[in-house]
Amino acid sequence: MQKFSPVILFMITLIAILFTANAKANDQTDPLPSWNESSTKKNIIDFVKQVTDKTNSHYVPPMDRIATFDNDGTLWVEQPIYTQFIFAIDRLKAMSAQHPEWKTQKPYSLILSGDKKALAALNVQDMERIMAVTHAGMSVEVFNKLAQDWLQKAKSPRYDRLYTQLIYQPMLEVMNYLRQNDFNIYIVTGGGQDFVRAFSDKTYHILPRQVIGTAGKTKYTYQNKQPVLIKLPEVLLVDDKAGKPEAINLFIGQKPIIAFGNSDGDKEMLEWTQSNARPHLMLLVHHDDAAREYAYGPESKVGTFSDALMNEANNQHWQVISMMHDWKTIFPAVIK
Amino acid sequence: MQKFSPVILFMITLIAILFTANAKANDQTDPLPSWNESSTKKNIIDFVKQVTDKTNSHYVPPMDRIATFDNDGTLWVEQPIYTQFIFAIDRLKAMSAQHPEWKTQKPYSLILSGDKKALAALNVQDMERIMAVTHAGMSVEVFNKLAQDWLQKAKSPRYDRLYTQLIYQPMLEVMNYLRQNDFNIYIVTGGGQDFVRAFSDKTYHILPRQVIGTAGKTKYTYQNKQPVLIKLPEVLLVDDKAGKPEAINLFIGQKPIIAFGNSDGDKEMLEWTQSNARPHLMLLVHHDDAAREYAYGPESKVGTFSDALMNEANNQHWQVISMMHDWKTIFPAVIK
Repeated sequence: MQKFSPVILFMITLIAILFTANAKANDQTDPLPSWNESSTKKNIIDFVKQVTDKTNSHYVPPMDRIATFDNDGTLWVEQPIYTQFIFAIDRLKAMSAQHPEWKTQKPYSLILSGDKKALAALNVQDMERIMAVTHAGMSVEVFNKLAQDWLQKAKSPRYDRLYTQLIYQPMLEVMNYLRQNDFNIYIVTGGGQDFVRAFSDKTYHILPRQVIGTAGKTKYTYQNKQPVLIKLPEVLLVDDKAGKPEAINLFIGQKPIIAFGNSDGDKEMLEWTQSNARPHLMLLVHHDDAAREYAYGPESKVGTFSDALMNEANNQHWQVISMMHDWKTIFPAVIK
Repeated sequence: MQKFSPVILFMITLIAILFTANAKANDQTDPLPSWNESSTKKNIIDFVKQVTDKTNSHYVPPMDRIATFDNDGTLWVEQPIYTQFIFAIDRLKAMSAQHPEWKTQKPYSLILSGDKKALAALNVQDMERIMAVTHAGMSVEVFNKLAQDWLQKAKSPRYDRLYTQLIYQPMLEVMNYLRQNDFNIYIVTGGGQDFVRAFSDKTYHILPRQVIGTAGKTKYTYQNKQPVLIKLPEVLLVDDKAGKPEAINLFIGQKPIIAFGNSDGDKEMLEWTQSNARPHLMLLVHHDDAAREYAYGPESKVGTFSDALMNEANNQHWQVISMMHDWKTIFPAVIK
């Protein structure tokens, strides 16, 4: 018989505990507790199990496990208007003291009047001018600070919550589940890349380098002998529709194996994912829950999820996530 | 006294072996064996030790450990002409059978004539036209295959080696050392992003998503009902000089803490790194070794490392790497 020191005995005990805990975690923990026990949930879990199982013919090595998520309407609420546009309006109001001419100058006057009808009548060019004025002419750092400050205070009137608390708990669980399974997660958003980067880490555990979005040009210059990047009012990339696979190729250089969207703007990203020679899964969030969130799916004829997209989803076997039926809870509990 | 099963005894032995091996590795292994014992080597190792030591005031968490490397002249040979341009010339020749008009049409005729003087007389616009013709009009996949096929065969006449074997062993060791210390490594190259992505994984263990380079626009379309991205002959980003910090911000959204370059095209990237509030280290490879490689530093007055850059390096305490004095070996051993 050999003697064993207390240290070794302690280590053996520790190993035994860790092994047991690990086995339990693998067997019993539900990675998606906010999802109802539907075929949607089963399809996501089955897919992840297949691509991470080395003995499965659908196994995908970690470096090729690319997951892409749209943001507005897929990870957080996009109704009644995009959060970034609310930020732009608030910025315009804050800046208006320095711009008395805006009181009589369209489209600025329309925003500053506070008239909701005027706001609804803004066209794409008006919006682009407002975005350019509020999102350019300062350094990347200054913009980041402005966005962060705003996001720490601005609340949704309907929910009386910060906008960064109007994120979907079931999708947080999916991102976490994929992360635990060595997926490389990216946000691929039609929204502004710099705006989403201002909150993605704290809100989703998504680093700036994992955020691909609509981006403006920048200009490298110097202020007080220090280098700065100034945001210019010129668009470099529009990361929507065909712009999504183009940007995925530019930033990642590989096709996703799993992609989540919720609108016609995500169709090309899902097609691109479907063209991956690797196993792949495409999903669309269907907003059909007016009671808990909003209902603006194809049946409503008002949203950005068209009949054509629903037909495509059915024909191509893209997984449609019903907010009403698939999600047990919508938002995370808010820790005050 | 307790009894222990053979399994437990085996595990204890294994743990003991692993602990010993680990301690040895930390103490004795030289992470940069191809570097001479100079202050350059010491500065790199000291920096990595400081930023990875949680008890050190210069500690940097892994997510902020961004390292950027120029490619041409920093990771592989760029003389007598850029490898990508040799590829473009070979492509032009291969394509010329389909383009009889090129025989009399400049600048194509200048290349096809094989006259070295004519080649040397090409201006920037000529080069851009040749790059556009040879690097666009096909899908991203087709281009990738063309580049990979070429790189598997084309050899440097001086060294009788594949171009992907004309990489700097000391820099491979630095990249490996940084990787082992949880740095996030990026290539930030003035060369073509798609061209470098075609060999970066096999050659440097750098994935496509870690390669930031000069990039053309692409167009999302369909061929035989399958989505494809077609490379267009239009420049989206020029990743050189001020374009480097601009691209670093676009792709990564964080400043590097360590950056390696070798020319005036890297100055802004090094300035940007120096402006990081985190600890930082900036380095420039000085090509001063005509016997083993090339000598085209500031003293030569022929290269892209100007007097002004050397002055900047001295004033800002950027680390100048002398190829002749700091590097024991230049290229990796070739396994036939």
